[in-house]
Amino acid sequence: MIELKEKISKEGRVIGSDILKVDSFVNHQIDVLLMDKIAEFFKPKFNDINKIVTIEASGIAVATSVSRVYNYVPVVFAKKTKSVLNINDVYTTKIFSFTKKTTFDCIIDKRFLKPTDKVLIVDDFLAEGNAAMGLVDLCKQAGAEVRGVAVVIEKGFQNGRKRLEAEGIKVVSAAIIKEFKNGHVILK
Amino acid sequence: MIELKEKISKEGRVIGSDILKVDSFVNHQIDVLLMDKIAEFFKPKFNDINKIVTIEASGIAVATSVSRVYNYVPVVFAKKTKSVLNINDVYTTKIFSFTKKTTFDCIIDKRFLKPTDKVLIVDDFLAEGNAAMGLVDLCKQAGAEVRGVAVVIEKGFQNGRKRLEAEGIKVVSAAIIKEFKNGHVILK
Repeated sequence: MIELKEKISKEGRVIGSDILKVDSFVNHQIDVLLMDKIAEFFKPKFNDINKIVTIEASGIAVATSVSRVYNYVPVVFAKKTKSVLNINDVYTTKIFSFTKKTTFDCIIDKRFLKPTDKVLIVDDFLAEGNAAMGLVDLCKQAGAEVRGVAVVIEKGFQNGRKRLEAEGIKVVSAAIIKEFKNGHVILK
Repeated sequence: MIELKEKISKEGRVIGSDILKVDSFVNHQIDVLLMDKIAEFFKPKFNDINKIVTIEASGIAVATSVSRVYNYVPVVFAKKTKSVLNINDVYTTKIFSFTKKTTFDCIIDKRFLKPTDKVLIVDDFLAEGNAAMGLVDLCKQAGAEVRGVAVVIEKGFQNGRKRLEAEGIKVVSAAIIKEFKNGHVILK
């Protein structure tokens, strides 16, 4: 998706050997027009969607853009929590954060995921796929169908896509990072 | 704002004496079309805006809707953090969470708030105003102008509006709760 690739080349900052900071347009400051264009890019690639599932916080902006192109289907964002209080009311899964080197519980209220749901999972980043696999797990617990995973930026050299595709899940990314080289981003 | 009032009456759940749960359309599942309509409601009430500032996580959805009605101005969401690492790079403030009974640090990267910014602060709830006052503080540190505060639901019986207006800040809410009575919401 050309506008996103240009934006990454212009504003993305490589930190160390494996971190790309895109906080000027994705996950601190948000370029909402770009998110809307990314949603349009996803639209022809998935159909028959009646719910968007994402995870707080930085998945929410792009998820609401994607909702618009699918006729305003509801967005549900999974919540990160330290302690699950009402285990009977929520689906819960554990997600290991690669960047924060910590595991957290992640929940969705049972009222907001149903066996009739045809879910598109949306997130800002796909790296090892821990967050996406956690969201797939929550959907499975609800008996919902996962129609695919749509991400803004994929780290193509990590295992997220492989793990999702091994589960038979379609993955579409608006931009794929091939590698980091001498502090620069090489896009596919 | 009539659609929001109807939605609150229909789906809002009163917990105990002072909590309104609107997680089916605001802060867990999101009704994006309703957020877009709320943004249209805010539009004539504020002008000359070039940035939206909100706080993660549940302010983000409505903030992106508001960005669209102001010609896609950037959204910046303040981040909650336990430890501020690079104090030179960020504006920081402390916010006491009324619901969680805890104080957290809240930051915005200095690159994303400038003296030339004319900011509309957007959030899902206004109660005691701690989050909004924290965001005002971050804007002041940057020398940015706060043009107003726009919130989805205001608890009219708490002090948020008073505190903001005492600072000369215009406050607009799409719905105002007058009181909770026998487990029901009474709207203004």
